[in-house]
Amino acid sequence: MSFNSFGRVFRFTTWGESHGPALGAVVDGCPPGLSLDEADIQPWLDKRRPGTSRFTTQRQEPDRVRILSGVFEGRTTGTPISLMIENVDQRSKDYSEVALAYRPGHADYAYDAKYGFRDYRGGGRSSARETAARVAAGAVARAVIPEVRIRAYLVELGGDAIDRAAFDDAEIDRNPFFCPDTAAAARWEEIVDGARKAGSSVGAIVECVADGLPAGWGAPLYAKLDSELAAACMSINAVKGVEIGDGFDAARLTGETNADPMRPGPDGKPIFLANHAGGVAGGISTGQPLVLRVALKPTSSILTPVETIGRDGQAADIRTKGRHDPCVGIRAAPVVEAMVALVLADQKLLHRAQCG
Amino acid sequence: MSFNSFGRVFRFTTWGESHGPALGAVVDGCPPGLSLDEADIQPWLDKRRPGTSRFTTQRQEPDRVRILSGVFEGRTTGTPISLMIENVDQRSKDYSEVALAYRPGHADYAYDAKYGFRDYRGGGRSSARETAARVAAGAVARAVIPEVRIRAYLVELGGDAIDRAAFDDAEIDRNPFFCPDTAAAARWEEIVDGARKAGSSVGAIVECVADGLPAGWGAPLYAKLDSELAAACMSINAVKGVEIGDGFDAARLTGETNADPMRPGPDGKPIFLANHAGGVAGGISTGQPLVLRVALKPTSSILTPVETIGRDGQAADIRTKGRHDPCVGIRAAPVVEAMVALVLADQKLLHRAQCG
Amino acid sequence: MSFNSFGRVFRFTTWGESHGPALGAVVDGCPPGLSLDEADIQPWLDKRRPGTSRFTTQRQEPDRVRILSGVFEGRTTGTPISLMIENVDQRSKDYSEVALAYRPGHADYAYDAKYGFRDYRGGGRSSARETAARVAAGAVARAVIPEVRIRAYLVELGGDAIDRAAFDDAEIDRNPFFCPDTAAAARWEEIVDGARKAGSSVGAIVECVADGLPAGWGAPLYAKLDSELAAACMSINAVKGVEIGDGFDAARLTGETNADPMRPGPDGKPIFLANHAGGVAGGISTGQPLVLRVALKPTSSILTPVETIGRDGQAADIRTKGRHDPCVGIRAAPVVEAMVALVLADQKLLHRAQCG
Amino acid sequence: MSFNSFGRVFRFTTWGESHGPALGAVVDGCPPGLSLDEADIQPWLDKRRPGTSRFTTQRQEPDRVRILSGVFEGRTTGTPISLMIENVDQRSKDYSEVALAYRPGHADYAYDAKYGFRDYRGGGRSSARETAARVAAGAVARAVIPEVRIRAYLVELGGDAIDRAAFDDAEIDRNPFFCPDTAAAARWEEIVDGARKAGSSVGAIVECVADGLPAGWGAPLYAKLDSELAAACMSINAVKGVEIGDGFDAARLTGETNADPMRPGPDGKPIFLANHAGGVAGGISTGQPLVLRVALKPTSSILTPVETIGRDGQAADIRTKGRHDPCVGIRAAPVVEAMVALVLADQKLLHRAQCG
Repeated sequence: MSFNSFGRVFRFTTWGESHGPALGAVVDGCPPGLSLDEADIQPWLDKRRPGTSRFTTQRQEPDRVRILSGVFEGRTTGTPISLMIENVDQRSKDYSEVALAYRPGHADYAYDAKYGFRDYRGGGRSSARETAARVAAGAVARAVIPEVRIRAYLVELGGDAIDRAAFDDAEIDRNPFFCPDTAAAARWEEIVDGARKAGSSVGAIVECVADGLPAGWGAPLYAKLDSELAAACMSINAVKGVEIGDGFDAARLTGETNADPMRPGPDGKPIFLANHAGGVAGGISTGQPLVLRVALKPTSSILTPVETIGRDGQAADIRTKGRHDPCVGIRAAPVVEAMVALVLADQKLLHRAQCG
Repeated sequence: MSFNSFGRVFRFTTWGESHGPALGAVVDGCPPGLSLDEADIQPWLDKRRPGTSRFTTQRQEPDRVRILSGVFEGRTTGTPISLMIENVDQRSKDYSEVALAYRPGHADYAYDAKYGFRDYRGGGRSSARETAARVAAGAVARAVIPEVRIRAYLVELGGDAIDRAAFDDAEIDRNPFFCPDTAAAARWEEIVDGARKAGSSVGAIVECVADGLPAGWGAPLYAKLDSELAAACMSINAVKGVEIGDGFDAARLTGETNADPMRPGPDGKPIFLANHAGGVAGGISTGQPLVLRVALKPTSSILTPVETIGRDGQAADIRTKGRHDPCVGIRAAPVVEAMVALVLADQKLLHRAQCG
Repeated sequence: MSFNSFGRVFRFTTWGESHGPALGAVVDGCPPGLSLDEADIQPWLDKRRPGTSRFTTQRQEPDRVRILSGVFEGRTTGTPISLMIENVDQRSKDYSEVALAYRPGHADYAYDAKYGFRDYRGGGRSSARETAARVAAGAVARAVIPEVRIRAYLVELGGDAIDRAAFDDAEIDRNPFFCPDTAAAARWEEIVDGARKAGSSVGAIVECVADGLPAGWGAPLYAKLDSELAAACMSINAVKGVEIGDGFDAARLTGETNADPMRPGPDGKPIFLANHAGGVAGGISTGQPLVLRVALKPTSSILTPVETIGRDGQAADIRTKGRHDPCVGIRAAPVVEAMVALVLADQKLLHRAQCG
Repeated sequence: MSFNSFGRVFRFTTWGESHGPALGAVVDGCPPGLSLDEADIQPWLDKRRPGTSRFTTQRQEPDRVRILSGVFEGRTTGTPISLMIENVDQRSKDYSEVALAYRPGHADYAYDAKYGFRDYRGGGRSSARETAARVAAGAVARAVIPEVRIRAYLVELGGDAIDRAAFDDAEIDRNPFFCPDTAAAARWEEIVDGARKAGSSVGAIVECVADGLPAGWGAPLYAKLDSELAAACMSINAVKGVEIGDGFDAARLTGETNADPMRPGPDGKPIFLANHAGGVAGGISTGQPLVLRVALKPTSSILTPVETIGRDGQAADIRTKGRHDPCVGIRAAPVVEAMVALVLADQKLLHRAQCG
């Protein structure tokens, strides 16, 4: 079952702590013969890499990935692909205070309650630094599903939503927020700068769309495509909500307004007249674009002091110094993309297993 | 891995179709020596049973559960517990039209795309009737976690939300909507009656709170408590969104307003001054109440005609006759409770496995 | 993970005790569209059925299988196939003595040590009666691998081996021992009769050959075909050893005498000049016949008294009365066949998943 | 499910090829707080290390293990433990011939049949070099089961068996064969020298005994202790047979001679008067020593030419040059020990999960 693995046939396991020597992923079940080298993985890591703008943590990590196994002469062999990323800029001294008191909103107290002690350096295993391993594994997953195009972007930051009418796909990679709305991106600069200067932080909502997947991926009942996606996204640090298609808004529709009517299409497949369902019905893809959104809470590491208790049980106030993202939602966009890729690669193979 | 199983140590598998002779669940990994008989399970099934008010489907099913294995002299033996519920009121003739055309919002088209054909009688395997098996399995799970109290109720129906100030726990079981607000329950009668008479349907939001679980259940990273809960809830029919604690609203808070400050408590455990996190941090329970919400779309089976296509690819209009819940969200409340119980039972055993 | 499930994509779960109302299997992951009804399963159960000759237990069980789900209009739907067999001839009164003392060689003491108590009636869950569920599931597996022919037969009984030169495939179904050697079958009548009359029992060795599977099924390293087969066979009651190809004898060969040399074959595939490997290399099928053998200990239930202790810790002597197979190895042959079919069906789907 | 992982709660994944830059294991589910550092692992790797006597391959590998995660301040944290061993002495040039023709007895042909191509350098993933990762993971497992002592040794080599009367536990570590019989060890020197000089190889039988495990580990039916052990051992390179307790010889006993009678012991636990069962009944440990044996075929890599075919389908003769163990069974002893430790650690945690 594994606590640190995900997937059924295409399955990955991650390892590593924020301030250990390295972190990595082992990808198992990858089909053989796919073209893959480190240059296929690195660009995705670069998208998630810290320190690329003033709106993310200033920790300097090159995040260079090495492929240690499973690839021979530029192609996957079908055996486990071991991916490793060395940690370079650990600065453990920043974290001494954390050893003694619990940061509210962080896993500190829960880890101690569970394990009796914890690697407190930079959050240890609970650090979002682990998501680098997901992104690397996700790049392998993309090689399994070349027919699918996945795009994640922010639709809201600090409570400020994009204007859907101003949606511009090309804009997403032009600003440091993965924001598809130029005007919103400009406003978000101020919001994030303001939060950082105030020693505060803000939340965000990431939307992800996957095009090109055929009808038929997913499976009833506990391997439903949407169920797997929900698990995958909820496992990302700071995520507190996941919705598919219209999601929570669907609860406010009626049977007629929520229906996605179908008409005959040119190639025998249906044309859907709406996509309230977000591309999934009964846990199985319908051939429409897959649409999901995840809500990320504001970064819990803030300079503003918060009431807490120490390991000794005594009252304390804690300010989380060090280098932190004022909005973890920003760098979550490439992680959501990776998780969606990982789920879809797995579902493609699973579908092939059962239905040939 | 199993498509139709859920859980890691405490694990259940369900089987059965809406119009087959029976449906059931096999519960594996249950600890031995727990007191259990059919009378412990039946009341939970009765809560979910159809036909108990005019606000749910009029299909008449007694939903009598039989324990076929795994219990000896009133106690669980540690071996698989097989639970079976016979289908009584199938009326297959109601569903002939469904065989030929796809009902929008249902799994009909996706199943055909995946499997090449489907058991179209009452939705076959994709029918919410399967959730009876979950509720039965959930009753077994409750025996594993006597320290936990789980309550699910509706906080919104047809876009009409309860008044939190009027929340009354005792009210939940007094109305047919599992609604904790007397006034809202009265309004909802009209909403559901109106939808039914209009040949329409409405959505709902179910909230679930679990008290009594200790800090330390759950595990990084892909067995996180919230990740498991998200998968479990998203696997329920008609669910389109899941959120933990403040969920999507957390994305609109700041680091300070989202913090759950801690103060020393009388027994060495912390007192939390807020519960924005919903009882989970880093995927592990904090000892606070677990709080989650799920969004359910309006029933897709409506009398109002919807544009669709047939199996022959031709355009058609479909009205879904038969006996349907005008709001599937109502009967989902006991199902959400069951899924939460199933996840918590599993997490309790997993925690014991790793941490003694 | 499940204690009572086996398989990865094609996966089955069994439930039921010797003296409960019924036993069964849930088969998950079966491809859709396969022709299947109860008449396809019953003949395999009939081969394993007790009471068909004087050489097996006289318990009278019709072992009628019912398909409760997963099949529609004579074809598998891709959803879980629930199979149930009712217990008819339980005679619980035979087993009262077993409640108080541990039968050496049986699971009685180990179950009590593990679970604190046990369903002592007929061995409860540890009874070989559970293998009926395997045989039923195995019949479904056969539908997944029509290209494979599987034959299990006894090559040794009570220490008396067949003469390989006298091997006659047609003989296997003509005698009550699944013995391919007419003369040996005659001798075994006397051996089994002798054991039964003496209140004793004998062991046996079952060999199983599977023809028709292509090269390429199986996978390194912990899903090796031979590793899965070993697990599957060792899970059968009374099995104490498993070997593939030459097995233990291979340890006495040299590199040259153990080699299976290859020559070019007519269709581009190799012709192997020997099959010491038993059809598996590196955990993957080579396209040669799969050959394995399992060793079954003598039935532990014997009339001859054996020294033991009671649940009260006191010394006791126990004679196991009731209706028992004097050689459990005989009825194990159809069970070994079923387990091989179940492993191969799973491996076929797994191979398809990863390698298209 | 993972092709390259093993275990249920305590679960490890291995990666790496013979001639890649490194190999390793990720151990997941390890309890927190156990004392562990590299010095605890290295001695076990040193036992398996090549090049330590003239009776093993002359490949020079220091096999230095690094712990990359999961340990903090000398204790396990409960998060994944990543173990890495760099390959130093790859000499890829030795293996050019293997790229073009299939070595009988090796996985070459099966890998090509499955994956379409393979990493032919030193056998790639199918090389026994992978077992270094198992031994490293096994050392972690030992920390989980301090109550258990595991000893593996050779009882037969090249068809020459030890004299049980001369069994001397202390002798096992004094000779290069893990042989408990001084006289046999002397004879085996000649056998192995002879095989090497003749360009041949020999097989062996390894026995493994585990003392100290309590009654109650293991679980019916598909997680049986013996079933897990069989899978674990059969997954080791060159293993062709596994038996528990009397194994295949049990098939030649009678119910009386195979019984392990019980008498009351001083502490309320039974004293067993024999151990034909090898410490397992019904798939659950009885508290007696666990005893198993595995058969290893002779090394398939031999200098003597063997008939084969090339990738081009043409007839060829192949001599496997390079540095090979003349008896792979020797270095398998520490690997069997490791696999037994890994299974027992997992079963201990599983038992704790279900039975407290």
